[in-house]
Amino acid sequence: MSGNGFGFTLHSTDGVARRGEFKTPHGLVQTPAFMPVGTQGSVKAMRHRDLEEAGAQIILGNTYHLYLRPGDELIARRGGLHRFIGWPHPILTDSGGYQVFSLADRRTITEDGAEFRSHLDGSPHLLTPERAVDIQARLGSDIAMVLDECLAYPASRDEAARSTERSVRWARRCRSRLLELRGGRTDGVDVSNAGQAQFGIVQGGVFQDLRDESAASTAAIGFEGCAIGGLGVGEPVDVMYSVVADTARRLPEHQPRYLMGAGTPQDLVECVARGIDMFDCVLPTRNARNGQLFTSEGRINIKNARFAEDDGPVDPQCGCYTCRTHSRAYLRHLYMAAEMTAGALNTLHNLSFYLDTMQRIREAISLRTFDTFRQEFLRSASRLSLDS
Amino acid sequence: MSGNGFGFTLHSTDGVARRGEFKTPHGLVQTPAFMPVGTQGSVKAMRHRDLEEAGAQIILGNTYHLYLRPGDELIARRGGLHRFIGWPHPILTDSGGYQVFSLADRRTITEDGAEFRSHLDGSPHLLTPERAVDIQARLGSDIAMVLDECLAYPASRDEAARSTERSVRWARRCRSRLLELRGGRTDGVDVSNAGQAQFGIVQGGVFQDLRDESAASTAAIGFEGCAIGGLGVGEPVDVMYSVVADTARRLPEHQPRYLMGAGTPQDLVECVARGIDMFDCVLPTRNARNGQLFTSEGRINIKNARFAEDDGPVDPQCGCYTCRTHSRAYLRHLYMAAEMTAGALNTLHNLSFYLDTMQRIREAISLRTFDTFRQEFLRSASRLSLDS
Repeated sequence: MSGNGFGFTLHSTDGVARRGEFKTPHGLVQTPAFMPVGTQGSVKAMRHRDLEEAGAQIILGNTYHLYLRPGDELIARRGGLHRFIGWPHPILTDSGGYQVFSLADRRTITEDGAEFRSHLDGSPHLLTPERAVDIQARLGSDIAMVLDECLAYPASRDEAARSTERSVRWARRCRSRLLELRGGRTDGVDVSNAGQAQFGIVQGGVFQDLRDESAASTAAIGFEGCAIGGLGVGEPVDVMYSVVADTARRLPEHQPRYLMGAGTPQDLVECVARGIDMFDCVLPTRNARNGQLFTSEGRINIKNARFAEDDGPVDPQCGCYTCRTHSRAYLRHLYMAAEMTAGALNTLHNLSFYLDTMQRIREAISLRTFDTFRQEFLRSASRLSLDS
Repeated sequence: MSGNGFGFTLHSTDGVARRGEFKTPHGLVQTPAFMPVGTQGSVKAMRHRDLEEAGAQIILGNTYHLYLRPGDELIARRGGLHRFIGWPHPILTDSGGYQVFSLADRRTITEDGAEFRSHLDGSPHLLTPERAVDIQARLGSDIAMVLDECLAYPASRDEAARSTERSVRWARRCRSRLLELRGGRTDGVDVSNAGQAQFGIVQGGVFQDLRDESAASTAAIGFEGCAIGGLGVGEPVDVMYSVVADTARRLPEHQPRYLMGAGTPQDLVECVARGIDMFDCVLPTRNARNGQLFTSEGRINIKNARFAEDDGPVDPQCGCYTCRTHSRAYLRHLYMAAEMTAGALNTLHNLSFYLDTMQRIREAISLRTFDTFRQEFLRSASRLSLDS
C-alpha cells in the first residue's frame, strides 16, 4: 500500500475558483466534482450505467452501512468494493463517524472511539480511528476519510474546541494506522486497494479561530487531501459560506478541498467560488424520490396538480433520458401512483442536473467566465425557491 | 376509426406451434410474443428503454388502473396512452373487468355491467361493455379487449354456463360499440387510435363443451383476434394445458391467439406447443421484486444465504446488463438492504429471460426444431423448481 495511486493537478483558476483533476487507481476525476451518494453500494434507484450517462466520475460509499451489511470482510473477500458492486470508476468512502452520530443507537464517545449499537440489529460495535482506517482499507475505496467527531449545532466555543482537538488527535491516529498499512504492517487486514489516498477533515464549528487551528493541524499531518466537515448542520447559510471561504484558503493549495455533505445547486456554485473542489450530497437523489426536481428554471414539486396536464419536459434545457422521453404529466402520474419508475426517472434527472452544473462550472472556470456564470446561475436559482 | 391498422401473418408452423407477426398502428410484433405488464402506464421498476433492450415489442396496460388514475379522458387529452407514457411501440389494454373482480370494493354484477367502488378512494363506478370499449378507445391502445365476466374457480357447470353466456352477450355489445365508433358515432368519445383492433375472450371454465361453444360464438362475432380467459385461476396445470389445447384449435387460424395471464416459463413453452401466440403475466416482474430470478439453470431466490459470497452472474447464459455487470453476491446484498436498484436489476434480468425465451421459441419454430427445444427447456425447467 503506497498511496502513490493518487495525485491532484490544478489546471486553472478564475478568482478563487479552481479547475483541476485528480487521478486515482480507478481513473481520473475532473474537479470541481460532485459525488452522488451510494450509501449501501448503490446510488438509490440508479444503475451504474445511469450514473455514467449522467456524468458521474466518482461516487461515495458509506462505511457505516457497508461495515454493518454486508460487512467489510466479505467485501474484501470479493476483491474490494469496486469489484463487489461492479463500479470500475473512483469511489470515496466516509469514515462511518457521521452515521454513528446520526443513525446508531446508544452511542458513547470516548477518547478511544465511538461505541454504538447497530440500527439494524442492536449488535454492539466499537469504531476507533484505527478501525475506521482498517475497514476502509478492506473496502478499498480510492479515497478514505479519517474518523472525526461530529459536533452538534449549536455548540459552545468550549465544546467546539474540545471536540475539534479530539478530531485532530483522531486524525493523527488514522494517519499513523494508514502508514502502518502502507508499510506492510497489516495485522491481517486484507487491503483491497494499495493506492488508496486518505483525506483529513477540518472541524471547528462556526468558530473561525478553531477552524484555522484545525486546518493548520490537519495540513501538518500530511494527508493527500483535505475536507471541511461539520457544516450544513443548521447554521445560517451565510455563516456556512463565510466559514468555507476562510477555511478553504488555509488548506494546501495543491491538494483537493472537499466540502462534506453540501448541498443545494446554489451551494455548489457559491462554494466553488470560495475554493472548493469536491462535493457530495443526498439532496439530488433523496429529493428526486420525494418528487422534488431541480431545473434550470426553478425547483418544482412534480406532485403539484398544475403538472397533471403539462406535456412539457421537466427541464427544456436538459438532455437527460427523462427529459428527452417523458412529460411532466407522466412523471406526476407515476409519482402519484407510487410507481418505482418515478424514483428512477426523477433521480436520473436530478443527478444529470447536478452533474451538468458541475460540467458548466468547470467550463466557465477554464474560460475565466465563472463569475458571469455564477451571477446568471444564482439569478435562475432565486426563481427556484418560488415553487419549492 | 377503421381497424385497418391491424393484421396477422402466419409465417410458419412446427406441429401445432405457430410463428408469425402482427402489425399494429405502432409497429410489428413477432409471435409467439410475451407482453410485460405495465399496469399503470409503467412496467414496474423499468424504464421504457430497458424494455426495448430486453426485447419487448409490446406491453400491456391495465384499463382499470388507468381509468381510475390518471383517467382515460386526461390520457385522451394527452394524445392517448402511447404519447402520454412515451412508449412508441404497440400496447394492448385489458378491459378492466379482471381488476374489478379482483381489486375493487363492493362490486355488483348485473346484465348491464359491473358496479364497483374504486379501491383508491371508494368512489362509485359502473363498467359496462360499452364503457369498456369507450375507455380503451380514449386510451388508444393497439389492441383492446372485450369486457368479460370473470368466473371464480371452482365453479359448477351451471354457474360456468350462465357466466359464459353472459360474456358472449357482453362481447357482442363490445363489438357493436366498437363498430359504432369506427363508423364515426363517437358520442363525444375522443378516439386516440383509429386503427385499434379488438379481441374477443373465450370463457367456459374447465368445461370443454362450454369452451367450445364460447369459442364458436366468439369467433362468429368477427374480432381481429381471440383470447382464452379464465385460466390459471387455481385449476391443476394439466387441466389448464388440456383446455388450452382443445380451445386453441377451435379458434380462427389466421388470427392471433392470446392466453391471458399465463404464466411460468414452462407455461409459455407448453402453450406455444398447443397453438398460443401471445402471453402476458406479472410473474417475471413481480417475482423479480421479491428476489425470485429465472435462469437457464434453475429458479433461484437471490435472498438465499448461499449467494452471499457467490461472485458469478445470475445466469451464465444470459447477456442482460444485470448478468454482464453484477454478481449474485451483490444482487443479494441489494435485496437484503432493500435497495430500489435491486428491483430494477432483478426485473431487467427476469424480463430478459422471458423475452429471450420467446426469441428462442420463435427461432426453433422457424427451424422446425421446436419439439427438441421444448424437451430441453423443460428438462432445465424441472431443475428450476428445486430451489424455488
